Amino acid sequence: MAGPPITLTSDFGLSDPYAASVKGVILSINPDATILDVTHEVLPQQIEQGAFVLQAAAPYFPPGAIHVAVVDPGVGGERRAIALATERAVFVGTDNGVLSAALPDQARPDPEGLPTVVALPAGIEARLLSEPRFHRLPVSSTFHGRDIFGPVAAHLSLGVPLAELGPRVQGVVALPAFRGAVQPDGSVVGRVLHIDRFGNLVTSVRAEQIPDGAVAVEICGRRIEGLTRTYAEGSGAIALVGSSGVLEIAVSGGSARDEIGASIGARVTVRTA
Amino acid sequence: MAGPPITLTSDFGLSDPYAASVKGVILSINPDATILDVTHEVLPQQIEQGAFVLQAAAPYFPPGAIHVAVVDPGVGGERRAIALATERAVFVGTDNGVLSAALPDQARPDPEGLPTVVALPAGIEARLLSEPRFHRLPVSSTFHGRDIFGPVAAHLSLGVPLAELGPRVQGVVALPAFRGAVQPDGSVVGRVLHIDRFGNLVTSVRAEQIPDGAVAVEICGRRIEGLTRTYAEGSGAIALVGSSGVLEIAVSGGSARDEIGASIGARVTVRTA
Amino acid sequence: MAGPPITLTSDFGLSDPYAASVKGVILSINPDATILDVTHEVLPQQIEQGAFVLQAAAPYFPPGAIHVAVVDPGVGGERRAIALATERAVFVGTDNGVLSAALPDQARPDPEGLPTVVALPAGIEARLLSEPRFHRLPVSSTFHGRDIFGPVAAHLSLGVPLAELGPRVQGVVALPAFRGAVQPDGSVVGRVLHIDRFGNLVTSVRAEQIPDGAVAVEICGRRIEGLTRTYAEGSGAIALVGSSGVLEIAVSGGSARDEIGASIGARVTVRTA
Repeated sequence: MAGPPITLTSDFGLSDPYAASVKGVILSINPDATILDVTHEVLPQQIEQGAFVLQAAAPYFPPGAIHVAVVDPGVGGERRAIALATERAVFVGTDNGVLSAALPDQARPDPEGLPTVVALPAGIEARLLSEPRFHRLPVSSTFHGRDIFGPVAAHLSLGVPLAELGPRVQGVVALPAFRGAVQPDGSVVGRVLHIDRFGNLVTSVRAEQIPDGAVAVEICGRRIEGLTRTYAEGSGAIALVGSSGVLEIAVSGGSARDEIGASIGARVTVRTA
Repeated sequence: MAGPPITLTSDFGLSDPYAASVKGVILSINPDATILDVTHEVLPQQIEQGAFVLQAAAPYFPPGAIHVAVVDPGVGGERRAIALATERAVFVGTDNGVLSAALPDQARPDPEGLPTVVALPAGIEARLLSEPRFHRLPVSSTFHGRDIFGPVAAHLSLGVPLAELGPRVQGVVALPAFRGAVQPDGSVVGRVLHIDRFGNLVTSVRAEQIPDGAVAVEICGRRIEGLTRTYAEGSGAIALVGSSGVLEIAVSGGSARDEIGASIGARVTVRTA
Repeated sequence: MAGPPITLTSDFGLSDPYAASVKGVILSINPDATILDVTHEVLPQQIEQGAFVLQAAAPYFPPGAIHVAVVDPGVGGERRAIALATERAVFVGTDNGVLSAALPDQARPDPEGLPTVVALPAGIEARLLSEPRFHRLPVSSTFHGRDIFGPVAAHLSLGVPLAELGPRVQGVVALPAFRGAVQPDGSVVGRVLHIDRFGNLVTSVRAEQIPDGAVAVEICGRRIEGLTRTYAEGSGAIALVGSSGVLEIAVSGGSARDEIGASIGARVTVRTA
């Protein structure tokens, strides 16, 4: 038995030895480990984008999957290394919000709030990764992915209980929930969390937040009337619910990033037309 | 036993959660699946390039391999989801030509023709992927790779017979054969199907189509005399039979794409010098 | 048993069928092989960069790992195909220096020297890959990764003894040691071997070569006083020992490549301040 799969999400890129080093360390501990990349192309040190991509991919992995996320501008500083276990998966990485996918929306700050330390809801357990026998020693000050997170994930895949990793942690850093904020007038305001390879703008507005009936989407001074069902419909800028279950802005046969000029963080409003 | 390997060819890129989601779904069905990327860097929605890269890689995989190809500008539209089984492999994806590697040249349209529906030759069987128990439900309208093709491939890797996937399909969309067209004067006309990382222009002219004896290759107003045996020989623009068994145009120590200025689709002629 | 892992380091990129073809050939020989990418993004034909990235990643793989490196501007020319076995790993590729990670520094040319043929130290054995039964036949003149190196690695992973691959080789091409050169005045001169995804300049100066006490680092006309412990400390250009155990030049919150303007090969000097 290979044990549950281990996924990797990072800003390492693919031209450096970093991702391979983490995998080598994992295989040195569990030679039968199944290791999969979510992505190593998170924009350098963009914690929120990394958290979003992991949150988008994680639900499709089998129960028990171990998700390692390394987007860590403060490596070697005061950030804690933690593991966060839900009923469905274990998330391993820095306690800087990149593991927010482990937390339900209601445990995270308001969509318009700031990253902050939150209490853990029932059913979620966090542990400080302080137990050196599960690390690669000596632990460097610059590469915790290789020396802490990868080794801990490998030991977890071999069946090491969470409780052995270190003491229980009461609160963890969480990013604002990836959802729109409902305004007093009933409109929903969100923002662009990710831009995919096709230039589609992936927003924080969830499908179920979109008002029934005719709607209009506003972004960067443009107004898009109505939603389409697929990328192939309509012409010019279109809005639709993408495969991640959130509102996306696309340009039929083109790139919304280029034609609309939006970047990550851009504000989007959905209102009844 | 892990079962036969599953390969993935797509235009997903590597910065988005899409490829990982497909892999997660496959592992959720067959935890021991062996999954390999052919490439996720097909140019967005370039069906022919995807078909070519898959056709170039597929012969090197073991018998029984399952090849998933997702290059699908019409996702959610009228395109059918199919599986095409040859004696050597199963191809799973959209019936838009991207699975043309499953078909021998003689079953495909003439090199100078257009994509069209063709009859299946003996020994090749196609099935409509209509049986929901092999899909991930509910099937989204935008991500059949995750909801249909990946799950079907995973079930096939577990031994589900092709016939259970859905009813037999009589004709499938095929791209023109990837080969040159022999002209009345004996010259062979092909075109650039792919440009590799080194800037080499990979054409549709097969090694066995190149006339014996001294030849000249014409492309973008240039004339290259003779063939070399390796990329290291000659100077300036050179022509040679590359590792895929087709004519390539290269520039010794440089990039043919940059120095010759050719792009995908550019016409190339080989004639007796 | 899957056997030891096989790693791949190349300049194939990820948009072409080449890396997948090598993997397919390996799986055709050993269906249970564990195959991992170190990187396929070595700059085209940059042997030294490929050797450096492999040297940086290889120590983290389990004992017995098989490392295939394909960076081969002279493919099809006079270069020999070899396997180099150390006590810890086997390196398979072209005898052009790309396998230098197999050799200890003292067996390699002086840091300021040139690539040259060196004698093998005790404990390291090299074999010419001349035995066709371990190759994919016919061997093409342009793609030894697929036809020789991949198949040989697969056979090694199945337990084929090194001695069966071909006759013993006495000397192999080695790159200058990746370390700084100590100067008569006690300063250490190295150069930039790699630029990582974050724009950090990774140099050949080893941590243990850096003088004790206060130091200054000079590069491209700049002088950096002192070392920091992490990337997050200091402001502007900083110098630190990175996770690979060598001196790196970074810019806090930015890219040293862009702000300092250094490229691969740039000279760096460390001296007592």
